[in-house]
Amino acid sequence: MSGPLSSAQNGQKERELDVHHLTLEEKASLTSGGSFWATKAIDRAALPTITMVDGPHGVRMPRGEGDHLGLSGSLPATCFPPAVALGSSWDAELAERVGRALGREASLLGVDVLLGPGINIKRSPLCGRNFEYLSEDPIVSGVLGTALVKGLQSQGVGASLKHFAANNQETDRLRVSSDVDPRPLREIYLRAFERVVKDAQPWTVMAAYNAINGTFCSHNRWLLTDVLRDEWGFEGLVVSDWGAVSDRVAGVAAGMDLEMPACGGRTDAQVVDAVRDGVLDEAALDAVAGRVLDLVKKASERPTRPEPVDADAHHALAREAAARSIVLLKNEGGLLPLDRRSRIAVIGEFARTPRFQGGGSSQVNPTRVDAALDAIRREAAGEVIFAPGFACDGSGDEPGLRAEAASAAADADVAVVFLGVPLEDESEGFDRTHLDLPGAQLDLLEAVRAANPRTVVVLSNGGVVLLPFADDIPAIVEGWLLGQAGGPATADVLFGGVNPSGRLAETIPLRLEDAPSYGSFPGELHHVRYGEGLLVGYRGYDAEHRAVAFPFGHGLSYTRFVYGDAAAVQSDGDVLVSVPVTNAGAVAGREVVQVYTALDASVVQRPPRELKGFALLDLEPGQTAVAEILLRRGELAYWDVRVDDWVLEGGEYRIEVGASSRDIRAVTSVALRGDEVARSLSMESGVDEVLAHPVAGPLLLEALERNGQATDEHALRVLGMFPIGRVDGFPLPYNEALRIVGEASS
Amino acid sequence: MSGPLSSAQNGQKERELDVHHLTLEEKASLTSGGSFWATKAIDRAALPTITMVDGPHGVRMPRGEGDHLGLSGSLPATCFPPAVALGSSWDAELAERVGRALGREASLLGVDVLLGPGINIKRSPLCGRNFEYLSEDPIVSGVLGTALVKGLQSQGVGASLKHFAANNQETDRLRVSSDVDPRPLREIYLRAFERVVKDAQPWTVMAAYNAINGTFCSHNRWLLTDVLRDEWGFEGLVVSDWGAVSDRVAGVAAGMDLEMPACGGRTDAQVVDAVRDGVLDEAALDAVAGRVLDLVKKASERPTRPEPVDADAHHALAREAAARSIVLLKNEGGLLPLDRRSRIAVIGEFARTPRFQGGGSSQVNPTRVDAALDAIRREAAGEVIFAPGFACDGSGDEPGLRAEAASAAADADVAVVFLGVPLEDESEGFDRTHLDLPGAQLDLLEAVRAANPRTVVVLSNGGVVLLPFADDIPAIVEGWLLGQAGGPATADVLFGGVNPSGRLAETIPLRLEDAPSYGSFPGELHHVRYGEGLLVGYRGYDAEHRAVAFPFGHGLSYTRFVYGDAAAVQSDGDVLVSVPVTNAGAVAGREVVQVYTALDASVVQRPPRELKGFALLDLEPGQTAVAEILLRRGELAYWDVRVDDWVLEGGEYRIEVGASSRDIRAVTSVALRGDEVARSLSMESGVDEVLAHPVAGPLLLEALERNGQATDEHALRVLGMFPIGRVDGFPLPYNEALRIVGEASS
Repeated sequence: MSGPLSSAQNGQKERELDVHHLTLEEKASLTSGGSFWATKAIDRAALPTITMVDGPHGVRMPRGEGDHLGLSGSLPATCFPPAVALGSSWDAELAERVGRALGREASLLGVDVLLGPGINIKRSPLCGRNFEYLSEDPIVSGVLGTALVKGLQSQGVGASLKHFAANNQETDRLRVSSDVDPRPLREIYLRAFERVVKDAQPWTVMAAYNAINGTFCSHNRWLLTDVLRDEWGFEGLVVSDWGAVSDRVAGVAAGMDLEMPACGGRTDAQVVDAVRDGVLDEAALDAVAGRVLDLVKKASERPTRPEPVDADAHHALAREAAARSIVLLKNEGGLLPLDRRSRIAVIGEFARTPRFQGGGSSQVNPTRVDAALDAIRREAAGEVIFAPGFACDGSGDEPGLRAEAASAAADADVAVVFLGVPLEDESEGFDRTHLDLPGAQLDLLEAVRAANPRTVVVLSNGGVVLLPFADDIPAIVEGWLLGQAGGPATADVLFGGVNPSGRLAETIPLRLEDAPSYGSFPGELHHVRYGEGLLVGYRGYDAEHRAVAFPFGHGLSYTRFVYGDAAAVQSDGDVLVSVPVTNAGAVAGREVVQVYTALDASVVQRPPRELKGFALLDLEPGQTAVAEILLRRGELAYWDVRVDDWVLEGGEYRIEVGASSRDIRAVTSVALRGDEVARSLSMESGVDEVLAHPVAGPLLLEALERNGQATDEHALRVLGMFPIGRVDGFPLPYNEALRIVGEASS
Repeated sequence: MSGPLSSAQNGQKERELDVHHLTLEEKASLTSGGSFWATKAIDRAALPTITMVDGPHGVRMPRGEGDHLGLSGSLPATCFPPAVALGSSWDAELAERVGRALGREASLLGVDVLLGPGINIKRSPLCGRNFEYLSEDPIVSGVLGTALVKGLQSQGVGASLKHFAANNQETDRLRVSSDVDPRPLREIYLRAFERVVKDAQPWTVMAAYNAINGTFCSHNRWLLTDVLRDEWGFEGLVVSDWGAVSDRVAGVAAGMDLEMPACGGRTDAQVVDAVRDGVLDEAALDAVAGRVLDLVKKASERPTRPEPVDADAHHALAREAAARSIVLLKNEGGLLPLDRRSRIAVIGEFARTPRFQGGGSSQVNPTRVDAALDAIRREAAGEVIFAPGFACDGSGDEPGLRAEAASAAADADVAVVFLGVPLEDESEGFDRTHLDLPGAQLDLLEAVRAANPRTVVVLSNGGVVLLPFADDIPAIVEGWLLGQAGGPATADVLFGGVNPSGRLAETIPLRLEDAPSYGSFPGELHHVRYGEGLLVGYRGYDAEHRAVAFPFGHGLSYTRFVYGDAAAVQSDGDVLVSVPVTNAGAVAGREVVQVYTALDASVVQRPPRELKGFALLDLEPGQTAVAEILLRRGELAYWDVRVDDWVLEGGEYRIEVGASSRDIRAVTSVALRGDEVARSLSMESGVDEVLAHPVAGPLLLEALERNGQATDEHALRVLGMFPIGRVDGFPLPYNEALRIVGEASS
C-alpha cells in the first residue's frame, strides 16, 4: 500500500470502513484503478491504495510512477525460475518456498498483490505465454499453483490467480472467444483454478482478456459468480486483466470487482449512471466495492516494517529451484554427470549470455544473473574451452562460428552445446508459429556432433521445441528458462552436484502437427474452437497412440528406481494409492511417482490415462520407501452435462503408477461406487434409458419380449436409442409405452 | 400413388384442390403418414395417397401393406451399386442414368417418392451408413447427388434428399446433437445439400433424426426454412425421417411438412389443439399442408401406365456402373489385367457369395445376383480353381480352409483373393468400432501370399478398411459394395474388359487414430462435437501431413495419363480451368481430372487443398484432350461468421490439377477480387481493424506515430488486437480514439 496508508495507520480505522459509508460515486470510483498499478485512495475515508504489480516469478515493481510500459525498467528483484521450469520440478514444497520468497520481496517493495501465479493449461505448444504456465495437466498446475499461492500469501501479500479462464493463447487474446464444451472446460481448463481456489483462497483472481463461449470473462457472471464464488466458495476479489474490461457495468453485475488499470473516470461514470437509471442494482456495486474494502483490510494486516530480504539467500533458492526444474531427457552411456577432470568444450552463446526468462509483463529486473559458462568453469577441474557457435540475434559469421565450435569440440573430451529459442521469439502478446530451433543452431549442433559424438545438448526455451537430433545426441538436458541462477543450477546437474529430478509437465512431440490442438489453434475471426475436447496434451497423444519425442512425466536420474506392487484402498471416499520404490542405483536421488487413472467401460469418453496425483521420494542408494498418493474423489469425477454437475461414475478404476505417462511400472485397480443420479423418464427417453430404470426396465423388457422384439445386445445397439414413445408401434404401441413410463414416475 | 388415385383419375380435380378447402383436422391429418409408407388419402376431397419407399440404390417396395420391418421382404428390384461405389465412379452422367433406371422401376411399382439419395459427408470412416453415402467431399457428393436426383425425377418419381443434415453417424442417431461450428456446417456438411437443392430441386428433402447444435432437425426452423427455403430456394416438401419427429407442433412451425410414418392420430390432434389454442399459427399449417398437396399434384402428373422395365438392361446398367466404381488401388508389375490363359486360383467366400450391399432400410431384394467366381470362370480361358478360404460368418475349419487356399494358390499362376467385411458388421443403425478386416481373412491372405506372391486382393466393403498388407501385395482392387452385378463387373476389370477409372471418394487411412474425427466420434450423452472443424477427410490428413494408405482421389488405370500445363481464367465470376491430358499408354482409358484450390494468405483457416471441380476424359491411346473444369465462384467462398454470409476473399488462389489429392500434376493460379464487406468501427474495434479502415486507418497511423508507438509488423502483432478505445492512454488517449472512430462513421 502507498499514499494514505500512513494516515490510516495514524489511528484511523479503515478496517471498520463499510461500503455503506461511501457515496455512490465513491463506490464506483473504488472499483476501478487509480493508476496503472494501484487502486484509488479515498482520502475522506482514509482509505489507502492497493498496489498490484506483475510477477509470477519475480516482483516487477516499476521504477517510476505510471510507467506502465516499463520503459524505465523495474526495481531489482530475484528472478526465480519461470513457471515452465518450476512446473517441471513437480515439487510443491519448493514452490511454496519460492512463493514465500516472492512474498518477502513484494512486501519489502510495498506490493500488496503480486499478479500471479499463472496456471492456464498449455493447450498448444505454440502459446506464446506457455513459459508463464505450469503444465498441460490440471493436477500439476493445481498442486503447484496452490503451493505458490500459499507461500506468497503467508507473507501477507495477495496472489492473483490468473488468467481466469481458458486463456490459452496470445493470438487475438483481447477479443477471442474460447469456444469450449462443458467437459473440457470443467475437467481441464477450470480444474486447476478450482483446486487452487478451494485449497489456497487466493486474495484475488484475475479475469482474463478472452471470452468463453461468446461472453467476455470480465463480465461473465456464470464464470465469476456462479462458478467461482457460489460453487467453489471463492472469498476474494476479482480483478480484471489490464484492459480486459469491455463493459464495466456488465462486469459489476457479473461480479468483476475491480477494473484495472485506471479508466480516467469514464467507466466509473457509466456505473454511476447505470445505478441511477436502474440498469444496475446498487447492491451489486456494494458487493464489488465491499470486496475492494476487504482487500484493503487484508493488505493492512501485513506488518508495516517487513523483514529485509537476503538477496544471496534468495539467489541460492533460485538456484535450488532451477536445479530441481531441469529435466534430463536422455543420457545414453552415462555421459552425464560430467567428469570434472575432463576437457570440456562449452559451445553456444546461451552458455555465456543466459536465456533465463520470457518477454512481456513477467520480465523481471534480476538482482544478478549467473551464466552457465562461469559456473562450469568454477566446477570443472580440467580445461574448459568456450566457443559461442552462434549469435543470439542470428548475426555474425555463421560458418566461422560453426567451424570454431567444431574445432573446440574435436579437441575436447566432451562437448556441451547450449541451444535455445531467442528471447524475441518468446513473449507475452503473440504465439509462436513453429516449434523449431533456429536453423543455424541445428547446423552448429550437427557440426559439433560430427567433430565429437560425445555431445551434450542443454536447452533454454520457454516453450517446447522439436528435437530432430534426439536420436543422434547421447545426452539432452531440458533447461527451460531457469531464472537468474539457472547457470550454476545447470552446472550442478551437469556435474552431478544435483541429481536431476525434473519431470516433463508437458509432452515434447515429434511434430507440431501431432499436437492435439493443431487443427483448431489459434482460431479465426475472434473464435477458437477447442476441438480436441478433453484430449489435451498427453491425453491426446495417448488416445491417438502417437509416438512422441519425450512423454509427459518423463525425466531421467543419475540413479534408477525400482517399483514394487501398487495397492489402492478407499479412504474416506478418496483413494489412497501406495507403492514401494527402491533406489537401486549408486547415488541418492529423487523419484516423482505418478499415479494415472482410467475407466475403460464408461458412459463418457475417457482419455487412456489421466494424472490424478503424484508424490516425491528422496531415496538414498539402496533405500526403499513407500510412496502414498491420495486421489481425491472429486478429481475422479467427470462433468455430466445431463445434470450439469460432477458425477463419480461407479466401476473398476484402473490405477497406473509410473515414472511417466508412457512408463507405467505398476498397475492395480479399485472398485468405486458411483454417485446416485436420479433421472426421470419421459416418452422421449430412449429404450436403453427405460431398460436401465429400476421400475420401468423390467416392464419394458417383458413387453418387448411379448411383442417378439429381440433384446439381445446386437438388437439393442440399434433399438436402444429409439425414444420409447415416438413411433406408435415401434417398439411398442404408444399406450403401452405410456403405461410403462407412467409406472416409473408413479 | 395408390388407393383413391383411381377416383381422382375419374374426372375429379385434385389438381385444383386447395388447402383452404380442407378442414383444420384434414390439414393436420394430411401432414402425417397414413401408414408406414404412405400419406393419408382424403376421400372427401378425392385426394390420393403418396407412396414413399426406401431406395437410394434400388426400390424397396414392401410385399405386404404395413410391413414396416420388411419381415416379409420386398418386391424384386435391381440392386444398383450403393452410393459408396457410385461415388467412386465420379461419373455424373452414369449416376443420372442409374437415377433414371431407379425412377422407371419405382414408377412401375407405383412409388411416388424414392427415399434417396443419401449425400451425407463421411465424417468418420466408422459411420455404419457410409456405404449409403457418396464421399467425404461435398463437391463429389453434390455433383453425383444432383445427377441421381435429376435422373430419378426425369421419370416423374420424386427424390428425397437425405439425411438433412449433419447426420454423420448411427450411434445415438435419434437423440444426438451434432454440435458443429458455422464454417464446417456450411462449407462441409450443408454444401452438397445446397448444391443439389439449387441444381436439381428434389421433390422432397428428408429431415434427419439428429439435432444440430441442440435443435432437432425435424423442428429446426433455421435449417428447414431459413436455410433450405429462404436461402436456397427449395420448393419441395420436407418429410421427416421415419420416427424423427419429437415435437410435431414445433415441426409444423419450423416447416417440417410431413411426419412419417403414421402417428395414429396422436400428433395430428396436437397440431389441431395448438392451432385452436393459438400456439400454432394456422398459416403455418396451411403452408405445410399445401406442400403435401403440391406433392400429390406432382405425383399425379406421372404417366399412369409406366413403361415396362427391361430387367436385363437394368442388370447391364448395374454392371456398367459397378465396373466404373471399382478403384484399382495398386498394380505393381502390371499383374492386372489378368492373362485369360493363366491358371487362376480364386480364393475367398465372397467370390462365390457376393457381399454386394449393406444392411438396413436400403437393403434391396435383387432381381438376380451374379457372383464374381462365375464371371471369372466365364471370362477365363485357363483353369480356375476356387477355394473359399473362410466362412463369411467365421465358422468352419479355419486352418483347413487356409491350407486348402494356400495349396490352390501355389498351384496357380495368380491368386485372386476376395476379402471383405461381413454383412452383419455393416448396417444402418450402428457404427463400426474398428476398421479391421477379420483376422481369419488376414491370416488367409498371408498364407496365400506366402504360397504365391502373385496375389491380387479384391475387397468387398461398405466402409473403409485398413490394408496392413498394402506394401506386400502387388495388386489391390477396391470393390466396395457393387450391387447385384458386381461379380461380372469385377471380372470386367480383372481381365481388362473395362479399364478401371474409379477414384477414391474417401481417404483410406493407415490407422483409425489418424482419422481427423477420431477423438470426437461418436460423442457421448447425446452430443457429438465436430471437433475437427473443416479438417474432414483429406482436408485433415493433408493439414496434419499424415501419411495415408491411399489418398482421396486416387485410382489407377491400365494406361497412364500425362498432364500438360494448366490455365485458369475468370469466366462470368467463375473460374474456368483447362488442362491438356494425353493418354500415353497402350489402351483406351478414362482419367478423372481433379481441381483443388487453396488460398495461403487468408483471414480464415484454409485446408491445404479443397476439391472444387473435376472432369472425366475418355481417351484413346495417344489421344490428347483438354479437360475444362468450371469452378463456381460460390464454391470458392467461405462462410464468414462476422456477417453470417458467404464471402469470396480476394487474393491469388492456387489451382492444383491432379490425379489425386496427393498427386498434383499441374499448378496455376488465378487472382480473384474479393467481395466488398462493409464493417463499421466502434471503440471496441481492434487497432488492426481500425488501421484497415480506409478513412480511420491513416488517421490512426498518424496518431500512433505521433505518440511514439511503434507500428511495424512485430509491434502490431501484439498491439493489433487491442481495442482502440478500451484503455485510456493505450494506445491512444480515449478522446483521440473517439475522434478517429467518429471520423470513420461520419
